[in-house]
Amino acid sequence: MSTGDGLVGLSVTDSAPTERGDAARNRALLLTAARRLIDEHGADTVTMDDVAAAAGVGKGTLFRRFGSRAGLMIVLLDEAEKAEQQAFMFGPPPLGPGVPPLERLLAYGHERLRFAWDHRVLLSDANSDPQTRFNPPATLHRTHVRMLLEAAGTTGDLDAQTDALLALLDADYVTHQVDDLGRSLQQQGDAWESLARKLCGT
Amino acid sequence: MSTGDGLVGLSVTDSAPTERGDAARNRALLLTAARRLIDEHGADTVTMDDVAAAAGVGKGTLFRRFGSRAGLMIVLLDEAEKAEQQAFMFGPPPLGPGVPPLERLLAYGHERLRFAWDHRVLLSDANSDPQTRFNPPATLHRTHVRMLLEAAGTTGDLDAQTDALLALLDADYVTHQVDDLGRSLQQQGDAWESLARKLCGT
Repeated sequence: MSTGDGLVGLSVTDSAPTERGDAARNRALLLTAARRLIDEHGADTVTMDDVAAAAGVGKGTLFRRFGSRAGLMIVLLDEAEKAEQQAFMFGPPPLGPGVPPLERLLAYGHERLRFAWDHRVLLSDANSDPQTRFNPPATLHRTHVRMLLEAAGTTGDLDAQTDALLALLDADYVTHQVDDLGRSLQQQGDAWESLARKLCGT
Repeated sequence: MSTGDGLVGLSVTDSAPTERGDAARNRALLLTAARRLIDEHGADTVTMDDVAAAAGVGKGTLFRRFGSRAGLMIVLLDEAEKAEQQAFMFGPPPLGPGVPPLERLLAYGHERLRFAWDHRVLLSDANSDPQTRFNPPATLHRTHVRMLLEAAGTTGDLDAQTDALLALLDADYVTHQVDDLGRSLQQQGDAWESLARKLCGT
């Protein structure tokens, strides 16, 4: 599956074919409005009526464009995943290239933790199917973390260490830590960093 | 929730009240038959008809006793969890006490990996609800692994390391590794041992 920008396998949905004019503008308006509403009120409370009204676009257009509320949410998650991947693969350091691998790995962990928390409702839905949980885009995160561990000179079984690090960034796990155990995102970030540093031997 | 044998919080279902005579014998016959059929054919293919026939007990009794197929499966998983917990808390070494903590930790990992594989269908069902995934009996495993890490003199954030180790024993993860990636249980056990040894500094 190509996303049309030279990245392969990054998308959780097939990309839409070429969009032009009104359709593309409406899509952008709707996604921007939905993102803003979700930031303000949380993903679980935003309705399709809210999104259409905030975008100044008819509700019919919203449903034609995304099929359903679930369809809209998948596109939103997909676009956020792509933006994050773009940032950690090609963006400025320390998330992108240009700093030592451990520094990049730590930046990745903190970024992904924040992402998991911000998108916890959508990610939790997606993860409830093991096929989604372990397949693209999850595989790209695995490749990235494993590459950084290797570049940092990490010894031992890199696959196991990669999976262990990623498990602590799982949306359900992070939600449990924060909501049920009362941990802060800062504490979770520190815990993750402690494990990453230990595995890298620093 | 007490299980009546002095262990608190180990059970995934409330224990049945006192059972006597025929009822207790039928229950044992049905559970033994169900375990044998699942061992032979896998949990997803065994029917309630199969279990009743193999136990030589009426199907009505089977349903009265366990409510539904799902109810029977929960009791089977619960009993297996309790037997395993008994073994790693109080059983003979190296799973139980009497050997150095790292040795006990490694025995635990190999045992739990086998358990996760053997009960993957039931565990996967149970894990699809994050409340079940992170609450008892999962908390008991966390306490056990953390205690062994601490006893082994492990440095750093023990909670994070405990959760990382347990994530690699998650039934969905193990199933993905074996079924989708073609890894053997032996390879998974070696990978887990590699991570555990590294965290314990050996």
